[in-house]
Amino acid sequence: MKNLLVAQSGGPSAAINATITGVIDAGLESKEVGHVYGALHGIKGVLNENFVMLDEIFESKEKRNLLAVTPAAALGSCRWKLKDPKENAAEFEKIIKVLRKNQIGYFIYTGGNDSMDTVHKLSEYCKEHGIDDIKVMGAPKTIDNDLGETDHCPGFGSAAKFIATAFTEIGCDSFVYDVPSVTIVEVMGRNAGWLTASAALARTEQRRIPQLIYLCEKVFDEERFLSDVREALKKENNIIIAVSEGVKDAQGHYVGEETKSGKEDAFGHKYLSGIGKYLEGLVGEKIGCKVRSVELNVLQRCAGYMLSETDIMESRNLGAFAAISAVRGESGKMSVIERISNHPYQVKIKLADLDKIANYEKTVPLEWITEDGKDIKEELMEYLTPLIQGEVKIPYENGVPKHFIL
Amino acid sequence: MKNLLVAQSGGPSAAINATITGVIDAGLESKEVGHVYGALHGIKGVLNENFVMLDEIFESKEKRNLLAVTPAAALGSCRWKLKDPKENAAEFEKIIKVLRKNQIGYFIYTGGNDSMDTVHKLSEYCKEHGIDDIKVMGAPKTIDNDLGETDHCPGFGSAAKFIATAFTEIGCDSFVYDVPSVTIVEVMGRNAGWLTASAALARTEQRRIPQLIYLCEKVFDEERFLSDVREALKKENNIIIAVSEGVKDAQGHYVGEETKSGKEDAFGHKYLSGIGKYLEGLVGEKIGCKVRSVELNVLQRCAGYMLSETDIMESRNLGAFAAISAVRGESGKMSVIERISNHPYQVKIKLADLDKIANYEKTVPLEWITEDGKDIKEELMEYLTPLIQGEVKIPYENGVPKHFIL
Repeated sequence: MKNLLVAQSGGPSAAINATITGVIDAGLESKEVGHVYGALHGIKGVLNENFVMLDEIFESKEKRNLLAVTPAAALGSCRWKLKDPKENAAEFEKIIKVLRKNQIGYFIYTGGNDSMDTVHKLSEYCKEHGIDDIKVMGAPKTIDNDLGETDHCPGFGSAAKFIATAFTEIGCDSFVYDVPSVTIVEVMGRNAGWLTASAALARTEQRRIPQLIYLCEKVFDEERFLSDVREALKKENNIIIAVSEGVKDAQGHYVGEETKSGKEDAFGHKYLSGIGKYLEGLVGEKIGCKVRSVELNVLQRCAGYMLSETDIMESRNLGAFAAISAVRGESGKMSVIERISNHPYQVKIKLADLDKIANYEKTVPLEWITEDGKDIKEELMEYLTPLIQGEVKIPYENGVPKHFIL
Repeated sequence: MKNLLVAQSGGPSAAINATITGVIDAGLESKEVGHVYGALHGIKGVLNENFVMLDEIFESKEKRNLLAVTPAAALGSCRWKLKDPKENAAEFEKIIKVLRKNQIGYFIYTGGNDSMDTVHKLSEYCKEHGIDDIKVMGAPKTIDNDLGETDHCPGFGSAAKFIATAFTEIGCDSFVYDVPSVTIVEVMGRNAGWLTASAALARTEQRRIPQLIYLCEKVFDEERFLSDVREALKKENNIIIAVSEGVKDAQGHYVGEETKSGKEDAFGHKYLSGIGKYLEGLVGEKIGCKVRSVELNVLQRCAGYMLSETDIMESRNLGAFAAISAVRGESGKMSVIERISNHPYQVKIKLADLDKIANYEKTVPLEWITEDGKDIKEELMEYLTPLIQGEVKIPYENGVPKHFIL
């Protein structure tokens, strides 16, 4: 019987704790697992042997269920990337030593591209050095939805549901005045526009907002943008626009790049923020109507009161599957989702090789974006819709959502 | 039998539709009320006779319940302030003419300070001109909680619940990394710090965040702020700060004013945004640790998925009480809340004179703020806590909250 270790890495999400809950579930259930440890602050916690006893802390199902709906990373995270083993063998030796000292035979690491690079390097190191007593597995996590080999990523569905909801609310808010107005909403995503695209899930038969959607996969042209806005204002009073924080011009530069970080823009205003504020200035100057910008900001990844039931269930299953697979002898792989069908929505959880996942960013296919670059196509709506379905009942204490805090 | 008219004004809130639902409830129930009309876009809709038949639209209880949990202003709003009757009698004559033409005997106007100014002027005009067949009543609404004569304002409780929740989530997000970090959260409020104070409702026994709270009622001193932050960082790694958008220096100037746009709205209020970004820059420059700022922005007033049950119930009752009182012959008053006790929380709904309400801003009493100006006192917590209690089950459609759209 060996112990199991789990750690979290990368930026927080609303579902990453559901994934480690799945790992704990599997560890508690398996007769081949002794203790379930958690390393605090990712791989740094492994290197420093900074462990907690998760099997004891989460013995009760109630506590596990609370953990599953707590946003961010309950075990803490890090942004620590392991160097190449050839350059820094000591770090790998240290990890193996710590794991063996604690009789850990199974190590599950949850995270995004960078974290999967860590899992990949570690498992390759084990393979090359004939280390067979330690199985290393990845479980995916990223609100950006940019991991390869998996249909979609845990955390994305809940973030998408939050964003779609925010757009419906911003829609209600924008339509109260009968004067022309433009609301520009900046959505997270440097290179992948999945989150921005999910703004379209706010559309209903009664209200088609946002009217304009700009993903970072397409070149962003300021003149075309202004003409799109002018055109939209001819049809409706209140225009809502979703834009990826990472939209770039034809030369590949972030739009408005030179105006960020405290520099002054062309209009003499100081812009300390991103694309939303920049485009707000542009519309104000060139079109002159009422205009505001909204940055959805960190709530996109940590809003725990707007969880997608589909996302939380899948996240928990992915964690459990990674753990079970490690116990069965698998190593160097990540648990992924394969979509079987949309109507009804059906998925299969399986394993994928890490070499295809580490350091690769899956972006929105260009054929899912309209040719004029200001909207998304029906195929993308079909892809997105099932991922935000279902609501999760969350516990409240004294009027605010209750979270698990270690 | 006379008809009843209701209209909404000022900035949207998550509860103003609950208030007009209460007005419709009362109108449908009263045998002395014929039709219930709604004017679109506030007093402008009255002037333009832009009416909808609310008694027909909301005949079913199900639709009224949906309206009660729809954020923003379903009838639309305006920022139109009636001039003094002596300067612009024509506008008042026009309103009376429109009301009489439609056999409207009861006019209920929901809104904040500026809207109550409209109700006050109109009722005074009626009094002076011996107009006795039209009763004009106000129903309060403002997330800012700054209306006089009422213990608190409809919309505030839900905004406070959203803010407290956002702080718990931002707390989860901030504590994932074990490096010193400062998160500055900018909260709405130009002159009244009620919303900023409600960040304290995020505090639990396990996590006391935000550690620092700055309300706009106290002079904001940049040097003292920096020393507070340095002090806090000595005790904990992750510091979360709540700050009112309207904090001012000793000279009464908005902090970091020169970095803002300086645009003014129809009432001469300066559009504010940017204290968060400004302080982010300050902390980055003077302290040099990891720092970010979050602007909670428009979601504070339109987040319809984080409703306080207490707020929604009270809002609906206030609307109903204003309507019933008008039918009973009252005019020139506003329905208000009197707090009877905190343990158990009990309130009484009654009427107050508008001359004490119009254009007056109720700020947080200085004795409820700590002397060092970086926190709130227990008395303020006692005041705030009951207002965010209870959750409202909201309907979903296709994964996003369903709203009533006219």
